[in-house]
Amino acid sequence: MAETNRSLLLRLEIEDLYARYCACVDSGKLDDWPDFFIEECLYRVIPRENYDRGLPLATLSFESKGMLRDRIYAATQTLFHQPYYQRHIVSGLRILGDDGGAVRCEANYLVIRTKLSERSEVFNTGRYLDKLVRVDGAFKFAERLCIFDSEVIPNSIIYPI
Amino acid sequence: MAETNRSLLLRLEIEDLYARYCACVDSGKLDDWPDFFIEECLYRVIPRENYDRGLPLATLSFESKGMLRDRIYAATQTLFHQPYYQRHIVSGLRILGDDGGAVRCEANYLVIRTKLSERSEVFNTGRYLDKLVRVDGAFKFAERLCIFDSEVIPNSIIYPI
Amino acid sequence: MAETNRSLLLRLEIEDLYARYCACVDSGKLDDWPDFFIEECLYRVIPRENYDRGLPLATLSFESKGMLRDRIYAATQTLFHQPYYQRHIVSGLRILGDDGGAVRCEANYLVIRTKLSERSEVFNTGRYLDKLVRVDGAFKFAERLCIFDSEVIPNSIIYPI
Repeated sequence: MAETNRSLLLRLEIEDLYARYCACVDSGKLDDWPDFFIEECLYRVIPRENYDRGLPLATLSFESKGMLRDRIYAATQTLFHQPYYQRHIVSGLRILGDDGGAVRCEANYLVIRTKLSERSEVFNTGRYLDKLVRVDGAFKFAERLCIFDSEVIPNSIIYPI
Repeated sequence: MAETNRSLLLRLEIEDLYARYCACVDSGKLDDWPDFFIEECLYRVIPRENYDRGLPLATLSFESKGMLRDRIYAATQTLFHQPYYQRHIVSGLRILGDDGGAVRCEANYLVIRTKLSERSEVFNTGRYLDKLVRVDGAFKFAERLCIFDSEVIPNSIIYPI
Repeated sequence: MAETNRSLLLRLEIEDLYARYCACVDSGKLDDWPDFFIEECLYRVIPRENYDRGLPLATLSFESKGMLRDRIYAATQTLFHQPYYQRHIVSGLRILGDDGGAVRCEANYLVIRTKLSERSEVFNTGRYLDKLVRVDGAFKFAERLCIFDSEVIPNSIIYPI
């Protein structure tokens, strides 16, 4: 039962992390987004075909928390784009491994996009492939890969997936 | 561990409430819908822009269980509309506060609509912002705000979100 | 608390089963799909209208694990079709009954389809109605009914829902 409770708690913790991550990016509090990651992190948004074939080309690829901050600065201050809302739905959490130091897990995600004065629409779907580590007791992302099913994005991805 | 178990149970209870709510509105058993609320309740469906700016205008706004019953009567008996199916997907439960008397929580939702002889489509997406209270041991909604991302609804909202 | 832990564990187990099922069909590892079922199983994909009226007509109906294997052979080897990716989102698990021998449960599902070089789109949505039994300690499907909301499918269903 001790093992079981540990497993339940781990699951609960990850689902809570995911929920806070989604609430952050969906509410548009983008300045808080980099804090979900450790300093030496990897964040990539990559088409499924490229990932499956081992091809390196990614739509977005950031390799430090500093680069994540730069991205948010660009998305909110310098990129010229039509604003839109995001809404994340996440399902099917699978804990792939837990070696005590890092937890590897994955989940399916769906992002609905809503442009001003337009109808909501399917924007991006795929799976998260994550590596989580504990910092001061709480999980942060060491890696988050967003492996999406389509190569066709309705316009470009501005905000974090 | 006692604290942890309490937290797990609370989460489980809320997810069960959400699942039953969705099953109710998706199966079309609309007469059962008001019973998810207490007598002195608040149910609102409001565009995100209005909510964020503190504007009072809502698409739907009901302030008692009696008004919820009236709405169901209207939706099923008097409103002239093309029938459609709903399917709710809910994700990302966040418990915002639990003071013993009432629990505040939120979650992302997506409603897929299917009209007879048409393809299923994204209908409405946003977040639930809820206030739950216990009645005879089980949770009911004291408040449910459905804060949706779009101001453009494909036709009007007939059934509960 | 023993009862509560049992309930939590059951829920966790079913959510894990669902997550592995989705990962299997979404990753395209279709040869593994029949192993989610027992030999004497029932798998049906049926329009909601037919199910609700007790009409037997189903889009797909397989009554043994052998038939599931045949289907995968057909889908991957003989059927002429345009390939597509699937992405499953599942939400709202409800445990309907647990008599010790079999667990009946249901959940809402949404399948997003992505064709090569096209945008992702809503493909199929509805609810799973399942009967689970334990084999060597782990749950397998004795029955999985996929009761979908639309009678209009954008092209035919090739892969498992």
